[in-house]
Amino acid sequence: MNKRKIINDPVYGFITIPSDLLFDLVEHPYFQRLRRIKQLGMAEYVYPGALHTRFHHALGAMHLMGQALRTLEQKGNLIWEMECEAAQTAILLHDIGHGPFSHVLESTLLPGIAHEQLSLLLMKKLNHQLNGRLDMAIQMFEGTYPRRFFHQLISSQLDMDRMDYLNRDCFYTGVAEGAIGADRLIKMLDIHQDQLVMEEKGLLSIENFLNARRLMYWQVYLHKTSLCAEAMLTQIVRRARELTEQGTELFATPDLACFLKNRYTLQDFTEQSECLLAFTRLDDNDVWASVKVWAQHPDPVLATLCEMLLNRRLFKIQLFAEPPTEEVLLPLRKQLAENGIPEALMSFFLVEGQTTNAAYVTEGDPIRVKMKHGQVLDVAEASDLPTIKALSKIVRKYYVSWAKNVSLRA
Amino acid sequence: MNKRKIINDPVYGFITIPSDLLFDLVEHPYFQRLRRIKQLGMAEYVYPGALHTRFHHALGAMHLMGQALRTLEQKGNLIWEMECEAAQTAILLHDIGHGPFSHVLESTLLPGIAHEQLSLLLMKKLNHQLNGRLDMAIQMFEGTYPRRFFHQLISSQLDMDRMDYLNRDCFYTGVAEGAIGADRLIKMLDIHQDQLVMEEKGLLSIENFLNARRLMYWQVYLHKTSLCAEAMLTQIVRRARELTEQGTELFATPDLACFLKNRYTLQDFTEQSECLLAFTRLDDNDVWASVKVWAQHPDPVLATLCEMLLNRRLFKIQLFAEPPTEEVLLPLRKQLAENGIPEALMSFFLVEGQTTNAAYVTEGDPIRVKMKHGQVLDVAEASDLPTIKALSKIVRKYYVSWAKNVSLRA
Amino acid sequence: MNKRKIINDPVYGFITIPSDLLFDLVEHPYFQRLRRIKQLGMAEYVYPGALHTRFHHALGAMHLMGQALRTLEQKGNLIWEMECEAAQTAILLHDIGHGPFSHVLESTLLPGIAHEQLSLLLMKKLNHQLNGRLDMAIQMFEGTYPRRFFHQLISSQLDMDRMDYLNRDCFYTGVAEGAIGADRLIKMLDIHQDQLVMEEKGLLSIENFLNARRLMYWQVYLHKTSLCAEAMLTQIVRRARELTEQGTELFATPDLACFLKNRYTLQDFTEQSECLLAFTRLDDNDVWASVKVWAQHPDPVLATLCEMLLNRRLFKIQLFAEPPTEEVLLPLRKQLAENGIPEALMSFFLVEGQTTNAAYVTEGDPIRVKMKHGQVLDVAEASDLPTIKALSKIVRKYYVSWAKNVSLRA
Amino acid sequence: MNKRKIINDPVYGFITIPSDLLFDLVEHPYFQRLRRIKQLGMAEYVYPGALHTRFHHALGAMHLMGQALRTLEQKGNLIWEMECEAAQTAILLHDIGHGPFSHVLESTLLPGIAHEQLSLLLMKKLNHQLNGRLDMAIQMFEGTYPRRFFHQLISSQLDMDRMDYLNRDCFYTGVAEGAIGADRLIKMLDIHQDQLVMEEKGLLSIENFLNARRLMYWQVYLHKTSLCAEAMLTQIVRRARELTEQGTELFATPDLACFLKNRYTLQDFTEQSECLLAFTRLDDNDVWASVKVWAQHPDPVLATLCEMLLNRRLFKIQLFAEPPTEEVLLPLRKQLAENGIPEALMSFFLVEGQTTNAAYVTEGDPIRVKMKHGQVLDVAEASDLPTIKALSKIVRKYYVSWAKNVSLRA
Repeated sequence: MNKRKIINDPVYGFITIPSDLLFDLVEHPYFQRLRRIKQLGMAEYVYPGALHTRFHHALGAMHLMGQALRTLEQKGNLIWEMECEAAQTAILLHDIGHGPFSHVLESTLLPGIAHEQLSLLLMKKLNHQLNGRLDMAIQMFEGTYPRRFFHQLISSQLDMDRMDYLNRDCFYTGVAEGAIGADRLIKMLDIHQDQLVMEEKGLLSIENFLNARRLMYWQVYLHKTSLCAEAMLTQIVRRARELTEQGTELFATPDLACFLKNRYTLQDFTEQSECLLAFTRLDDNDVWASVKVWAQHPDPVLATLCEMLLNRRLFKIQLFAEPPTEEVLLPLRKQLAENGIPEALMSFFLVEGQTTNAAYVTEGDPIRVKMKHGQVLDVAEASDLPTIKALSKIVRKYYVSWAKNVSLRA
Repeated sequence: MNKRKIINDPVYGFITIPSDLLFDLVEHPYFQRLRRIKQLGMAEYVYPGALHTRFHHALGAMHLMGQALRTLEQKGNLIWEMECEAAQTAILLHDIGHGPFSHVLESTLLPGIAHEQLSLLLMKKLNHQLNGRLDMAIQMFEGTYPRRFFHQLISSQLDMDRMDYLNRDCFYTGVAEGAIGADRLIKMLDIHQDQLVMEEKGLLSIENFLNARRLMYWQVYLHKTSLCAEAMLTQIVRRARELTEQGTELFATPDLACFLKNRYTLQDFTEQSECLLAFTRLDDNDVWASVKVWAQHPDPVLATLCEMLLNRRLFKIQLFAEPPTEEVLLPLRKQLAENGIPEALMSFFLVEGQTTNAAYVTEGDPIRVKMKHGQVLDVAEASDLPTIKALSKIVRKYYVSWAKNVSLRA
Repeated sequence: MNKRKIINDPVYGFITIPSDLLFDLVEHPYFQRLRRIKQLGMAEYVYPGALHTRFHHALGAMHLMGQALRTLEQKGNLIWEMECEAAQTAILLHDIGHGPFSHVLESTLLPGIAHEQLSLLLMKKLNHQLNGRLDMAIQMFEGTYPRRFFHQLISSQLDMDRMDYLNRDCFYTGVAEGAIGADRLIKMLDIHQDQLVMEEKGLLSIENFLNARRLMYWQVYLHKTSLCAEAMLTQIVRRARELTEQGTELFATPDLACFLKNRYTLQDFTEQSECLLAFTRLDDNDVWASVKVWAQHPDPVLATLCEMLLNRRLFKIQLFAEPPTEEVLLPLRKQLAENGIPEALMSFFLVEGQTTNAAYVTEGDPIRVKMKHGQVLDVAEASDLPTIKALSKIVRKYYVSWAKNVSLRA
Repeated sequence: MNKRKIINDPVYGFITIPSDLLFDLVEHPYFQRLRRIKQLGMAEYVYPGALHTRFHHALGAMHLMGQALRTLEQKGNLIWEMECEAAQTAILLHDIGHGPFSHVLESTLLPGIAHEQLSLLLMKKLNHQLNGRLDMAIQMFEGTYPRRFFHQLISSQLDMDRMDYLNRDCFYTGVAEGAIGADRLIKMLDIHQDQLVMEEKGLLSIENFLNARRLMYWQVYLHKTSLCAEAMLTQIVRRARELTEQGTELFATPDLACFLKNRYTLQDFTEQSECLLAFTRLDDNDVWASVKVWAQHPDPVLATLCEMLLNRRLFKIQLFAEPPTEEVLLPLRKQLAENGIPEALMSFFLVEGQTTNAAYVTEGDPIRVKMKHGQVLDVAEASDLPTIKALSKIVRKYYVSWAKNVSLRA
């Protein structure tokens, strides 16, 4: 059977699955599950085209990894066939630990567990099934593989993950201004002392990449309407768990029920087979199917929130440079109280949060630029353009999101 | 509150909601439900980007309707503001009666009821809620409005429905060759004696449109892999209903359960409020969430089919110019029997069907072309190009789809 | 010096020049001249974006050749590095013998000489300069290289020349419907007994390719306005040559003058170094610069035609299925006579011609399709779709193009 | 005759010419001349697709103006039909005074005359021919029309000129990262006290617009290779003029000769009909046709420079933050001297220059943002993002460009 499948992708034209191992991983139920997890969570409420999945993103990142490695080879860097497959494996699987709605429900469904930890755990599980064929991929993913640039291609400020998701998110949202020129960036990658570097003539492209990333943050990822919808969904799941823990009868798909009833630790994933099984079946459908039923639930908080979310009657939101003061919060609480929300339930209808975004982080692993005369500099040093430094300032915003004109369902 | 919302659309850039009425319809739960119904059913199994929804398609068709009407006006045809809104309303709501997976489950979930009938029923329901403000839209939809071209823009061989779905499906699948040039087609529309006509210089564009449509049929809508996945999903729902009717305990979301337990008639939708309510909540999530649970069901047929579909172990398929003979079927039945499928269950694993596709239908309402010298001809007569006639030949294909190497789950 | 240059191309993103030899050819003055010869002659009068050049097209075709050869290799066909370079060289140089305005002026400036003959002559000249390094490329171009598929990739009904020009012309004209899906076509190429074949699953794509090609013919290449402008330019050059031969003083750039004064044979190109030199410097600028001066020339025919062309006061045109009869021509001649055009000059203002276009030619080298069960068929036999045969019908059209309301400049 | 022509444009799909007056202006020889003047001068040497013309740009800017005015109307601003036509006229004609190679040859061919002055002069000429129908357009162009926003749409830091050229240049060069999202920007324009303002929610889009503009400056407009080619062409024309003034016989097209022989003042354009006539016929073809002949001229400087430019043997370039010191220049001069360039001719082969680019200029007319709470701020004040201020820093670079390995032709 021919496993060199070609997959249509409106973003890159075609994606070729380059080896039998990668084909088998794509076909594995763990990976197929990603077909049912949207990349951008609730962003579809603002951008109705943004329905693409983690599945598609992972394939795209694998594709870009192939292109990057080919470029590096053409510049005279020796890369073994096996390294190539390992790097593509690692990037293919990097998001395999994502739960429903990607980041949105991480804190409520799986408190205390990062999706990266689950990705690693599932990779190891797969490695076991495949008799150690993912050893090198796991090393690269974890950053223990000696040739450092592989890890940097998988996870750094200029990795194939970001390149694909920016490209793809900008395509599916229709925010054409977010275009990053992945082709150009990749053509200018090189290796210097086992570190990933960018050629000096790529400086403008890096800067554009950082700008585009920031644009996408504010225009899409942290769009006010998305934040509201996500806040609502988070409160819904929080309430559902609360009710479950209180012993209230509550419809849920069995796999979702599993995570509402239990607060699993990372260890449980290794030790309780049911926990892992449930997770590898859980996806966006479980949440939507349950939310739809909950809209008829006797609990007024759950029913109201679900009904509002389903019919797009969203919370309002306000952003602040400083944490919101009582001056801001008091009138909102008063309003909610007037609408009949008792103090004890207020936190489901008035949510505080913060978002932060540094387009470029100067601490830790920088983006390295190889100057024409040989030295390698942090991009913030390499550029004489004034903006590149401005981009590394962290912008933090605080928000309050609340239900306006809410009335609890009887 | 400003209801002239602007919606990002990667296909057209921006879609403007042109009036308060249209905004209210878009916000209505009936319409918001379309957010959760994919336009192309199982085609995502071949084209992972094809996740766009009926919601987005309906907005797109409304957008093209606006453009078409503006073009007609610029050519000196008088169109009232109210007609404009009615035409946009009708096209916005034309698919509102679609159930989960669009066409795929029509025959199993709602046997005997066409989605157009449900669309009309829901439009009338909305009209009632809105005190008759949809009267004209409904007339246009039904074809009773005197100025015939409005109905033709909503439903004919050159309507805004097809223009949007071809455009959109080709965008999201990545099948770039399916581009139809909607802009050019629309710019060449005109009205002649209250009928929609195309200017003679648009002949090539019509031909290209028909060709593109046919390409999309074979490349996407009737793609072998899609047909297999759809056949499987159909058998799954058929089995689930059978088990339900036999009294077997079966998980299902409440709304889906409603349609598994009952065989509603169109009349029931008017008379039983629960039936209508359930339908207006039912979407793809109900099906996926249930299919995932069914994969663990004790019934080996249901469990096997669900597990196969979820993990993309799909049926095989073969196409024929004639209905498949026993010569074809016998070996397949034998194979299935050897794999342990008893005769009584064979029909769940060996499915016969047919597909048909005429790019252009010469009977009924033709595409009219207004020649330079004034007369109006059927496009098949207007063109001296040899292909335009070839396109009106109906191509019918028969297929057999079956499970290869299946083994029933214990 | 690094010769692996990367060139920006809005059509394909980036084009990489894959070897030093190819780089040197690109930099050669013979090839650089193509920068100044537009691909589509006068089509810019209809499609103002269609200003792309033979230079860009040749680079694009070289790029697609690289992709095709890589695909063929991945399918297990052995292709030597040297063959790869030769095939890319041949396609890069295939149009190097084109004169100004590509096809338009071939018959008037270089009567009796086909541009393919000049391409071959210039390739041999380059081969001489490069000590025989183009031997294999020339064999492939001429069709004498044993492995036949190389020639078919360079020149056949499914060659990289057509794939690039259709792609490119459709991009720059904005006729989006002409998209051919070159990616998909190339991915489905294979070799069978040293012949280029298409996999069976590519049938739809071939059909779409032929349809798109035909669309582009009528929509762009044979667009009425283009035909008019080309007819005018042809008459201008014919008149300029006539005047020159009559001894009338006439401004011209020296290289153009060379071709107005002499009627060179192919042999002259080999034997008269001035002839070859002049040709390798001649481009669109010589023609435009001269036409602009001629608009002030005392000869009323020349001046009138030039002034009309420059200011876009174009001839009218009418197309016919049969050669135009006297019934058609007589009134036109009468009209022109009334406008003061004497009989002797009538042929400059009333031009007859014919155009012909078969999307697929069944004689000669067919497009071969390798069916699933192994046999190789002519595409016209391989497809059971009715249109594919219709496409091989030759459509011939006759036209008359004439100056309406002309008045000769004093 | 129907003058509401529709023009294909790969950038916007279709451009409609909205009125008879605008159609007549497009057809006027003054405007048709722009078909033969490339928008980006020598940038095609780096970006072979960048062959688009001032003609196409002007049509595109007219198109965007139409969209902007429609948006402003939809927001409740009253705009008269006549104002609409005047604004579109002004933007259509804003570049009509450009000479060959746009900015490149301004200083050598027409020293002391800015193209804006010639645009105005030609507009007034046209206005005279059209009996004053351009009065309002000229007021808007000059900034004397009372409703200030019209002028701002024609010429300001957020005008339709920039929006079109950034869009168009990014499309034709293939520098996809330069996308500005003109649609989104235009949708967020509004008017406040007769000034053009941007809605607050458009802040990110403005910032992206300024970033994209800066990217295009360094990546395209001030690309090193472009600068070199432009420096060479400038020296060629300087030399040609010098030789002409010295009485050396020199081929040139008559219209170019006119500008080599004379140093016209702006006044001469009004008083000497021959000067104006020659200018309205002069285009890129005159220059290329002459340069090609000059490559054979006995003058070694002219011949060498022309031959180098034609065959793409370009100058080298080096950029500096400060004006280049003798330390830099001396070795270059020495090198050139060793290659046989005498001191007196050195300035033709060693060119110094500077480029400057502020993405946003805070002096003069700012970009105004209308905040949610009503006040109108300069964009640099409105944004709390750190980059927006960085963008207003002027970046000035100095360069030296010189011929490497040159040898004067005998």
